[in-house]
Amino acid sequence: MAGSTLGTLLSVTTWGESHGRGIGVVIDGCPAGLSLAEQDIQIYLNRRKPGQSRFTTPRKEDDTVEILSGVFEGMTTGTPISLMVRNTSQRSRDYREIASYYRPGHADYTYDRKYGFRDYTGGGRSSGRETIGRVAAGAVAAKLLQELGITVNAYTRSIGPVTIHPDRFDLSQMEKNAVNMPDAEAAALAEAYLDQCRERQDSCGGVVECVISGLPAGVGEPCFDKLSACLAKGICSIGAVKGFEIGDGFRSAEAFGSDNNDAFYRKEDGSIGKRTNHSGGVLGGISDGSDLIFRAAFKPTPSILTEQQTVNREGEEITVSIKGRHDPIIVPRAVVVVECMAALTVLDLLMVSMTSRLDRIKDFFGV
Amino acid sequence: MAGSTLGTLLSVTTWGESHGRGIGVVIDGCPAGLSLAEQDIQIYLNRRKPGQSRFTTPRKEDDTVEILSGVFEGMTTGTPISLMVRNTSQRSRDYREIASYYRPGHADYTYDRKYGFRDYTGGGRSSGRETIGRVAAGAVAAKLLQELGITVNAYTRSIGPVTIHPDRFDLSQMEKNAVNMPDAEAAALAEAYLDQCRERQDSCGGVVECVISGLPAGVGEPCFDKLSACLAKGICSIGAVKGFEIGDGFRSAEAFGSDNNDAFYRKEDGSIGKRTNHSGGVLGGISDGSDLIFRAAFKPTPSILTEQQTVNREGEEITVSIKGRHDPIIVPRAVVVVECMAALTVLDLLMVSMTSRLDRIKDFFGV
Amino acid sequence: MAGSTLGTLLSVTTWGESHGRGIGVVIDGCPAGLSLAEQDIQIYLNRRKPGQSRFTTPRKEDDTVEILSGVFEGMTTGTPISLMVRNTSQRSRDYREIASYYRPGHADYTYDRKYGFRDYTGGGRSSGRETIGRVAAGAVAAKLLQELGITVNAYTRSIGPVTIHPDRFDLSQMEKNAVNMPDAEAAALAEAYLDQCRERQDSCGGVVECVISGLPAGVGEPCFDKLSACLAKGICSIGAVKGFEIGDGFRSAEAFGSDNNDAFYRKEDGSIGKRTNHSGGVLGGISDGSDLIFRAAFKPTPSILTEQQTVNREGEEITVSIKGRHDPIIVPRAVVVVECMAALTVLDLLMVSMTSRLDRIKDFFGV
Amino acid sequence: MAGSTLGTLLSVTTWGESHGRGIGVVIDGCPAGLSLAEQDIQIYLNRRKPGQSRFTTPRKEDDTVEILSGVFEGMTTGTPISLMVRNTSQRSRDYREIASYYRPGHADYTYDRKYGFRDYTGGGRSSGRETIGRVAAGAVAAKLLQELGITVNAYTRSIGPVTIHPDRFDLSQMEKNAVNMPDAEAAALAEAYLDQCRERQDSCGGVVECVISGLPAGVGEPCFDKLSACLAKGICSIGAVKGFEIGDGFRSAEAFGSDNNDAFYRKEDGSIGKRTNHSGGVLGGISDGSDLIFRAAFKPTPSILTEQQTVNREGEEITVSIKGRHDPIIVPRAVVVVECMAALTVLDLLMVSMTSRLDRIKDFFGV
Repeated sequence: MAGSTLGTLLSVTTWGESHGRGIGVVIDGCPAGLSLAEQDIQIYLNRRKPGQSRFTTPRKEDDTVEILSGVFEGMTTGTPISLMVRNTSQRSRDYREIASYYRPGHADYTYDRKYGFRDYTGGGRSSGRETIGRVAAGAVAAKLLQELGITVNAYTRSIGPVTIHPDRFDLSQMEKNAVNMPDAEAAALAEAYLDQCRERQDSCGGVVECVISGLPAGVGEPCFDKLSACLAKGICSIGAVKGFEIGDGFRSAEAFGSDNNDAFYRKEDGSIGKRTNHSGGVLGGISDGSDLIFRAAFKPTPSILTEQQTVNREGEEITVSIKGRHDPIIVPRAVVVVECMAALTVLDLLMVSMTSRLDRIKDFFGV
Repeated sequence: MAGSTLGTLLSVTTWGESHGRGIGVVIDGCPAGLSLAEQDIQIYLNRRKPGQSRFTTPRKEDDTVEILSGVFEGMTTGTPISLMVRNTSQRSRDYREIASYYRPGHADYTYDRKYGFRDYTGGGRSSGRETIGRVAAGAVAAKLLQELGITVNAYTRSIGPVTIHPDRFDLSQMEKNAVNMPDAEAAALAEAYLDQCRERQDSCGGVVECVISGLPAGVGEPCFDKLSACLAKGICSIGAVKGFEIGDGFRSAEAFGSDNNDAFYRKEDGSIGKRTNHSGGVLGGISDGSDLIFRAAFKPTPSILTEQQTVNREGEEITVSIKGRHDPIIVPRAVVVVECMAALTVLDLLMVSMTSRLDRIKDFFGV
Repeated sequence: MAGSTLGTLLSVTTWGESHGRGIGVVIDGCPAGLSLAEQDIQIYLNRRKPGQSRFTTPRKEDDTVEILSGVFEGMTTGTPISLMVRNTSQRSRDYREIASYYRPGHADYTYDRKYGFRDYTGGGRSSGRETIGRVAAGAVAAKLLQELGITVNAYTRSIGPVTIHPDRFDLSQMEKNAVNMPDAEAAALAEAYLDQCRERQDSCGGVVECVISGLPAGVGEPCFDKLSACLAKGICSIGAVKGFEIGDGFRSAEAFGSDNNDAFYRKEDGSIGKRTNHSGGVLGGISDGSDLIFRAAFKPTPSILTEQQTVNREGEEITVSIKGRHDPIIVPRAVVVVECMAALTVLDLLMVSMTSRLDRIKDFFGV
Repeated sequence: MAGSTLGTLLSVTTWGESHGRGIGVVIDGCPAGLSLAEQDIQIYLNRRKPGQSRFTTPRKEDDTVEILSGVFEGMTTGTPISLMVRNTSQRSRDYREIASYYRPGHADYTYDRKYGFRDYTGGGRSSGRETIGRVAAGAVAAKLLQELGITVNAYTRSIGPVTIHPDRFDLSQMEKNAVNMPDAEAAALAEAYLDQCRERQDSCGGVVECVISGLPAGVGEPCFDKLSACLAKGICSIGAVKGFEIGDGFRSAEAFGSDNNDAFYRKEDGSIGKRTNHSGGVLGGISDGSDLIFRAAFKPTPSILTEQQTVNREGEEITVSIKGRHDPIIVPRAVVVVECMAALTVLDLLMVSMTSRLDRIKDFFGV
């Protein structure tokens, strides 16, 4: 595959540039019989829209989704679902300047080296707008997972040095602050920190955490398509992600085995549970029935007003200051992107896991 | 794919259980004309062999590789290269006890849930011996990369709380200590730490770092097959890995954009370089011509002598102490596994990148 | 993959139903630097448009293609090319009748069994309009192949019992008759035959032949991705195709080896040629440098006015006569579809073949 | 994929050359819980073994299969099943002669052009021995299909001009003649025809037919992974196959729609059947519940004693006569190969089809 398609049974293919005619995605393999309307997708897209707080770009993007195929009389038909968002906010500004040099921290240089030239308007395919396709598809996956009793929730865990505290964790707080933090106190600190950042004409990074509940045990394929490995790929394929960890992640590298192992116990209903969840819901790369918990590290937005050294296409060293409508941080808007990539990954592997046992296949076909 | 195959143009399919007849791998898509002998692969396998220091299991494993196909008169033919290592060290010990309960931190429970039962002898497919296939294949990839001027070097970065120091970094030290650390002083501390671990009948984790040099710019496919995303998957598919980060990784989540961006400059030969390498060698998921640097977090070995709570197959709560020949840490032996997964991933994407530009395709075919 | 994506390096994903909002395709992996305009694609789409002769449905379909992404300033950028054709000719006719029963020879019954229900308007995803995505993508592939000196030409070989004669073969005749036959005499006979068919309120089938010239030797991957095998899949994935053969095909099953083998000889320029081409351009599934020649058998259009026995959704046996705007034969319009599927398949395998030899990879990277 | 792997959920990867150390296959994605012993596979391998009649090469091949992984205590575990057959019959004959020129009808020339050189001993990877991996894997697939009530039966339909007659069809006759024909009379004629062939030092081709019974409706994925398209690929990937057709195939190209359409009717048990089966068991590329019927055209064995013109590696024109132990026809031995490729293809798509409907997925997971 050339890189724009992801998934085995549920596959998504995204397309579109920041300043082209639109952005879209084709979802192939979505089971028939899911009730689906544009509004189901729109609410996810709205969560990633800019202009919703003082920390996101004031650029207005309408991002209205259109279902082009795969839904008939309000139900998915099992055939490809094509979703499109027209680009409407294309300013006629002059991109010639940006075209002439390589912005530090951006993909300008690597696209030029890979393809010989690049679509320099608004970042082209490496723009954050590329995530629209991921979110539109993820909204469908999340809706289907909900029908199966599986929920996916992501939120901002940290912004710069400010991290949420477990004792104050309250998911309902997420929507009440500009940074999507499930901790009112941390959110206030983070907002103050971001104000300082902006004053300094700088940007900063952060961490998104995601919890998946209700996932049955047995999802994930050894050896290469482990649930953790596929999540790592899906999450690290998001533009600004520089790290991924599941369960205790990098902290487990400093732990003792006696602390890191999760003890099994017998639940009241006779089923088996774990006393702790250091593993983050996977053992041997297969879901163990506990909550799946992982984190993604986002680098600071590379577009900053602060002066930077770089080189132009002629190879001359120059100093630049990136103007334009950019977020000082992308983490709050990236929360829904993480959630959607997780939903897509989990749903795909969940469907694949249906064929792991002959006895269940026999039951399925009634033989 | 069912999970045991990885890669687009260069694909590997691994097979084999810890205590079955053998372990192996099929490499498909290896270009014709690479000089290859069993010894080229054996030196990599020897690096992951147990019994080489007091911190690895005294279990003797011969792990002698056999090339079954794909090489003719010392050269790869372009057809599948099948490699096999016979299992020779199968003790006739009684695994019935292990079969009867779920070891904490192991995949016993999830395999049972996924497949209905499991091969309980020595961990079956979730055993560390599964990595033999990865290493055998990676040795071939690494040899081919060397022909193209690309080197891949992994080493132990930290063990528990002990981390190597950049000022003392010396790759030649790696082979001189039992923990594969390129820093003699840190290695001594780590060894002392491991001795304490073992005395406590406990285990610990660590971090492996990997550097890839000589990689041309332009490798990695937007949007889902980013170089960083594919590395994340390859690395996180290794059994005990709980985290992956590239460049500054999780630290970049706490950085400012002005610090995290790498300034471009003009090199003496007129080409373009970067003053720093916070990005770890990728921009927009595509290699930028700098060194590729990433890290993998390994959890502590789950098999420990210390008593643990768990549940048996009858659902009764019991207390267990895992006997047997187990490493107190797997990191030193995992170094070569990381190196090999990196080599496989990079070589695959390097070959895919050959078709990104029409002008170069025309040159290739002489039109 | 769920079935709507085809290809390894150059992959296409099609979407859309007959009477939905549109039909489209995403081409991923198209190399950067190909000059491409909507008109390049439109001329291919026009070749499959209905209403061009008295043997194609009088239904007017505009089928105007829009390039939504992947092209910047007239050049492909290397990122996904999204193409869409809006459905404009949706009659508000009542499809309830068709919805209530299973048309013989159509996919109504199998879609119902597979998905639980179906989009009954105009055939949904099993409609001939699905081929729009194939043709739009194939037009791009064909243009790129031309840049490499490779041409793909398909034509009607037979209609019912009327077959073209090699002695009268003239590709320029194709556009001069209503049946796309490169033989004026056969075309006249075929047209007369079709007139009879229509009078009888019946339909008929035919054979499309395709010749690919200029393909270098070495394309096709043993063992499963043989050039012949991938062509077979691509061609047999076209709705009404019931058979595929390459070179002498089924006739070779009746031949002697001494007749069927193609003798090699030395060409004047010193290169190696074949005296005959019974193999159709492949040996061992790999292109041999000769013309690639294959044929596809198309069944008669299943929609006929003649009365037929069938069953309705309630399981009652009924008699039906399929009204509507249907072609008495689909072969003339299918010619361009065959051509396009061939172009897509050949281009993909051509790009894959670039990595078969280490010496050429070294040359490519200049090492 | 580089071409040696086939399948989505059930994938097979074959390896091995004619005169290397062995031939093998890795089956990934085989569900856990299938009872499997080496003998189950051996009976299939024995059917393709040479030396069983006067029309197959007198070369003795033992072809004893070894299960290397994926089976524990007689049951498949869900992990990769690695199967190997050691090459034991390697004559120390001199292949230098064959190495020096290109045998007409063989892949010598194309391998040389693709890979730069070739393993010239016994055909290397393009040898008929490559089918051992297909047959070993297909035996496992066929056994699993039987557990689901699905049977796959292939047989020789024609040899040269001799074709079986429907009125004399008797599957039990297959094993009683040297040509695997389910028609005693045709078999006798075919044997006489083959005797003539051999006297003339020539070879001939034939057609294999395959019937799959018990397949539920709903298998096959539009648009590219149609059941017919995937079968076409699987079958056309067999070395000597030059054509594929399903149902009436090429004959349907000469039929009228009124004859070719299959009328639906109501069976006594209330389910829906078809009065005829011109479609060969697929409608819109999806199984319709009828028997699946397809045919494969095999070219004559290219190795013949008769003198042929060709070119040597120095580019000189020469005359050759291919000595050695070769079958005058490969069709009888290819019957089991066709059967096995069909079993693999059908099982894979059957498992994929389990996720086509949300209501059934809910049932599966008990929600």
